[in-house]
Amino acid sequence: MPLVRISIPQGKSEAEIRAIADGIHRAMVETINVPEHDRFQVIHEHAPGRIICDPEYLGVPRGPGALVVQITLHRGRPDAKKQALYRAVAGNLQAAGVRPEDVLVVLTENGSADWSFGGGEAQMLRPGVTPHWGASE
Amino acid sequence: MPLVRISIPQGKSEAEIRAIADGIHRAMVETINVPEHDRFQVIHEHAPGRIICDPEYLGVPRGPGALVVQITLHRGRPDAKKQALYRAVAGNLQAAGVRPEDVLVVLTENGSADWSFGGGEAQMLRPGVTPHWGASE
Amino acid sequence: MPLVRISIPQGKSEAEIRAIADGIHRAMVETINVPEHDRFQVIHEHAPGRIICDPEYLGVPRGPGALVVQITLHRGRPDAKKQALYRAVAGNLQAAGVRPEDVLVVLTENGSADWSFGGGEAQMLRPGVTPHWGASE
Repeated sequence: MPLVRISIPQGKSEAEIRAIADGIHRAMVETINVPEHDRFQVIHEHAPGRIICDPEYLGVPRGPGALVVQITLHRGRPDAKKQALYRAVAGNLQAAGVRPEDVLVVLTENGSADWSFGGGEAQMLRPGVTPHWGASE
Repeated sequence: MPLVRISIPQGKSEAEIRAIADGIHRAMVETINVPEHDRFQVIHEHAPGRIICDPEYLGVPRGPGALVVQITLHRGRPDAKKQALYRAVAGNLQAAGVRPEDVLVVLTENGSADWSFGGGEAQMLRPGVTPHWGASE
Repeated sequence: MPLVRISIPQGKSEAEIRAIADGIHRAMVETINVPEHDRFQVIHEHAPGRIICDPEYLGVPRGPGALVVQITLHRGRPDAKKQALYRAVAGNLQAAGVRPEDVLVVLTENGSADWSFGGGEAQMLRPGVTPHWGASE
């Protein structure tokens, strides 16, 4: 159910871009109970100077490879799961050639009525849908 | 007042893109009380592989034409109106050549102080502004 | 901590784009207590027709230069600070050649656990982090 909007610097190969997208999705599956097939990602490639990330804020040395991962997801994940997500995203992207310091992740939460996965239906409002995002997991 | 960010596959004609944008706006006017002139849309065209939508999640057969409509809007619409919105968006986009299964819609809500429609003013905080998004409509 | 996503019309010079990004950041520092180094911006340039802003809604005469500033930020800023932000953004962008009427700003709020500023850490959850976004400022 999450929607993931990924802003990366221009100039990466198809394989690198795919590895970044795969690594982010795998982190979500591993840490915040996102089903394997619940994958919705939009990728933007930006020319130099169009992703501006401070090179030192909070003591993180960001460089020209900085990228931004903005995730919209259902509310309810506890803080510890979000922390695990950030660690997993940064860890997985190393295999895609991205420095952990260059991975910014921002979450925005919404609710069950806020999703249509196609066909004009609000699937999360189907009777009997079992939430997979709750704190009780 | 909604802001609509639309991510579509590259390669559509000007007329197709306009029909998609028009169809989304008309759906909002028809179902969630958005005034006709309250139209603010941003369109992103993505190269192949830059919109990743699972081809089967929740039983919806999505294809290479999948597109993502991300709407930021004032909180308060009841679930039934959101459901009507999803039906109308998917229905209207068929006339623009888009399969209903390929229409993903995601909402994020905010409040009256969260909008400036130009001129440096927070127009929704003007005294006497009548909400047009409330549950009482 | 805010993430600022800026959608501008194609065709601006590097200097104009930089002046827009700088003007927005300066407004945030001046009005909503964003630290100078807390700067994270993503810029999208759009072909003609890809930013659609009604030319008269709420009495604001928008033109072809209209741009959209979408800010994700920590919840807690009082309305008066948001209003000051809108005035400052519109004011600062005049120096970058943008008419105040053409500046749309939209905010979405989230929480402390919703940010990783790099390195896989949720920095806002560090013990002793002093919120700089609260109403008490």
